[in-house]
Amino acid sequence: MRIAVIGVGFMGGSFLLALRESGLEFKAFGVDIKGEAIKLAKERGIISEGAEDIKALKNFSPSLVVLSTPVRTFRAIATELSKVLTEDTVVTDLGSVKGKLVYEMENILGGRFVGGHPIAGTEKSGVEHSIATLFRGKKVILTPTEKTDKNALELVENLWNRLEAKVEHMEPHFHDYVFGAVSHLPHAVAFALIDALMDMSKERDTNLFLYPGGGFKDFTRIAASDPVMWRDIFLENKENLLLAIEHYANSLNKLRSMIEKENEKEILEFLREAKDKRLKLEES
Amino acid sequence: MRIAVIGVGFMGGSFLLALRESGLEFKAFGVDIKGEAIKLAKERGIISEGAEDIKALKNFSPSLVVLSTPVRTFRAIATELSKVLTEDTVVTDLGSVKGKLVYEMENILGGRFVGGHPIAGTEKSGVEHSIATLFRGKKVILTPTEKTDKNALELVENLWNRLEAKVEHMEPHFHDYVFGAVSHLPHAVAFALIDALMDMSKERDTNLFLYPGGGFKDFTRIAASDPVMWRDIFLENKENLLLAIEHYANSLNKLRSMIEKENEKEILEFLREAKDKRLKLEES
Repeated sequence: MRIAVIGVGFMGGSFLLALRESGLEFKAFGVDIKGEAIKLAKERGIISEGAEDIKALKNFSPSLVVLSTPVRTFRAIATELSKVLTEDTVVTDLGSVKGKLVYEMENILGGRFVGGHPIAGTEKSGVEHSIATLFRGKKVILTPTEKTDKNALELVENLWNRLEAKVEHMEPHFHDYVFGAVSHLPHAVAFALIDALMDMSKERDTNLFLYPGGGFKDFTRIAASDPVMWRDIFLENKENLLLAIEHYANSLNKLRSMIEKENEKEILEFLREAKDKRLKLEES
Repeated sequence: MRIAVIGVGFMGGSFLLALRESGLEFKAFGVDIKGEAIKLAKERGIISEGAEDIKALKNFSPSLVVLSTPVRTFRAIATELSKVLTEDTVVTDLGSVKGKLVYEMENILGGRFVGGHPIAGTEKSGVEHSIATLFRGKKVILTPTEKTDKNALELVENLWNRLEAKVEHMEPHFHDYVFGAVSHLPHAVAFALIDALMDMSKERDTNLFLYPGGGFKDFTRIAASDPVMWRDIFLENKENLLLAIEHYANSLNKLRSMIEKENEKEILEFLREAKDKRLKLEES
């Protein structure tokens, strides 16, 4: 196999490392606008060749291309890929947004495009942080449509199975509702929390960040995630994220109002339900 | 020394375990409305005696009483204590709210009351989860006032120093501004997030909690905290918490509005600032 990764960062690097560790024989090519990332990835044996321009893929002639750049670059990359790839090259991605983006990618690339989203990652970025075991036991959502080529889907699914990931299929728009709620919303909530504390620090001329007790570090870890990646996710999943923020603002307002009215019983019930739900998560 | 703990739970139990491990010689008495907690604490050697009623303290005649019940019980407990303790018994607490509560406690108990708040804990509750090293290297905020007895303060401060905690003094109301922002707000935010996801699960007849990837478990861990304890904190620090929620709602709304307008540059700046601030925390 000949695998090209567009975007030589934490996710792309981890994917290649994991495939290598699975015993698969393949040649890896990396495309990245940062020459430094290509250099690092070569030094670590993650890729054998690399280039800053997608055109270089023509000579490499990959059997699979994996997109792992911020999602807002996907359309332009797909257009470039359509010019340099042969018809039988399968294309997949590791992006956090699917929805209409998947249908647009399909329009450009045809049925050989298979949308994918591994539910794994950390707040870290950069190929130097790549982890070979990142996907083991983790869910990977694939979003095939009516147009998806069966062989392309099988190829991508087999690779994830090699990595011991748990593959699930989802309709692209439903995917965005789900992850708008369980992933994009929490990130927005965490970024906003840091902003509020900066604001409140200024107001009293103090540094609230000197007192990060009681789970605060865990709670805000995701606010250290890559800003460009998250800007792109927020914008590409705008509709679902705004809907999720609306639901969330309602929930927060419900709690706020109970506290304002000092409604002991209602508050207790609200907290108990949330705790029970959260504890069930621990068991799963 | 003779130390009595009112509320034989995770915090009180950890405090006694830590003192024991520090090599201090003392006799420990536990008061709890749950007989089961007293039984467990005795079995683990955390206390040697216990009772369900504060009146039993009269015979034990403690040199120090430590309150570690939910904060809304403090006033009633202080009134009861004032009836059974001799004048020289020092009283302190491990509660998360100070502010006017400290001044009220002082009115009931006099200058021998020393407000304390260890910035340590987990989402776990129950004496069976007590940890002897819980406070090591952690901040402990003491909130002495003009009326606080110097010897009482010294006694309490010395105990925390034994446990290798880092003692800081704060004015009680300022304490509540700070922890309303860095601790009580994040808890409210996390409880509300779980509520929103329950709501959004219902709306599409799905179970969003099946997809807890990308830091979601870390992010919502604090929502598994004890509901009674947190109801009490929210109500006792109502004013500061409502203020913090207002700041927070503004921050979230700022981000929401940028996303709605697809203002790429502003979003990126918002996320970058939050990330930088959060990363600095990691260094501290």
